[in-house]
Amino acid sequence: MFTLFSMPGTCSRASHIALEESGLPYKVKRVDFSKQEQHSQEFLAVNPKGRVPALVTSSGVLTETPAILSFIAQMAPAAKLAPLDDAFEFARMQSFNAYISSTVHVAHAHGRRGSRWADEASSLEDMKRKVPQVMSDCFEIIEQGFHGGPWVLGSQYSVSDPYLFVMSGWLESDGVDIARFPKVHDHYQRMLARAAVIRVLEAEKQA
Amino acid sequence: MFTLFSMPGTCSRASHIALEESGLPYKVKRVDFSKQEQHSQEFLAVNPKGRVPALVTSSGVLTETPAILSFIAQMAPAAKLAPLDDAFEFARMQSFNAYISSTVHVAHAHGRRGSRWADEASSLEDMKRKVPQVMSDCFEIIEQGFHGGPWVLGSQYSVSDPYLFVMSGWLESDGVDIARFPKVHDHYQRMLARAAVIRVLEAEKQA
Repeated sequence: MFTLFSMPGTCSRASHIALEESGLPYKVKRVDFSKQEQHSQEFLAVNPKGRVPALVTSSGVLTETPAILSFIAQMAPAAKLAPLDDAFEFARMQSFNAYISSTVHVAHAHGRRGSRWADEASSLEDMKRKVPQVMSDCFEIIEQGFHGGPWVLGSQYSVSDPYLFVMSGWLESDGVDIARFPKVHDHYQRMLARAAVIRVLEAEKQA
Repeated sequence: MFTLFSMPGTCSRASHIALEESGLPYKVKRVDFSKQEQHSQEFLAVNPKGRVPALVTSSGVLTETPAILSFIAQMAPAAKLAPLDDAFEFARMQSFNAYISSTVHVAHAHGRRGSRWADEASSLEDMKRKVPQVMSDCFEIIEQGFHGGPWVLGSQYSVSDPYLFVMSGWLESDGVDIARFPKVHDHYQRMLARAAVIRVLEAEKQA
């Protein structure tokens, strides 16, 4: 049994969807950001970084979305959530996930968590103003790299798909019209229609 | 034969060291940042993101350090550069590498590439002032997570070690005294004494 520490609407949604697709037994524990639970002693004992997602396994706790996503895929080979038998294709998936975490998610974070990197109100406003442009540049790269589709890696669905789905879902609040990126837009709609995604979005509302 | 597009002193040094440790045949092509070669048409044809590292393989081009590092380890199992037979340990390595790329490297980048996220000179100065604190906070997390050593994962050397080595090497120019983090400091010295690291640092000077 895995336990995912998660907060609805954050990047932890990608790991939640991957677990739901995997068929692995899991439960979700909500970390309520409105109550600052990510900074609570209880949660810091799970993840000293004070961030979601964190996945509790029988071997220990895993953090960082790209690591959790690949791990879920490896633990559930029958669910075919990653090209596990092809090192290059697996690396291509990892490259996509690393780009999301180190560049796209970081670009988004400058709109709301700029105080991680600067102190002055004027700097935070400056960062916020630039978010639409930086996110657009990121999605230009993603759109151009999409090739055939319908999934990030092509014909095979993978854990990169829920990760992209979460980022695409942030575009509107980042002031970017997703329709500017037709392949990403199609992908987003396709994800919204997936049974596992519907179940996760419903679970997020319930909890 | 692999070709690594690299620039001395940047994070691509980690991939260079991993290749040198792997025993795989490879060559290095320098991307000269002083000549803005990362923005040249020739390099953008290799990596549209205009960043190093990029690894050219017979199957295609890989980008993003965490993906390249894991791929090198998988292509050279005899070199034992990753815990390939233990999904949890492999994920722990990936988690470390994801933290470096999405948090530590990003923290460092705010000191010199703040224009990625803001436009005003005052914002860039503000970011620069905060770098020592943010990098210190990151290395506090790394130091606390180091456990037994001597390597990042414990007794087994892995591709996480050259990646940490590159970040540790940036501390001085980021205004942080590495001696504040005794385990990281020991690790840095241990890496400097490694044959593959000595060869790579020498090659960077030559090219």
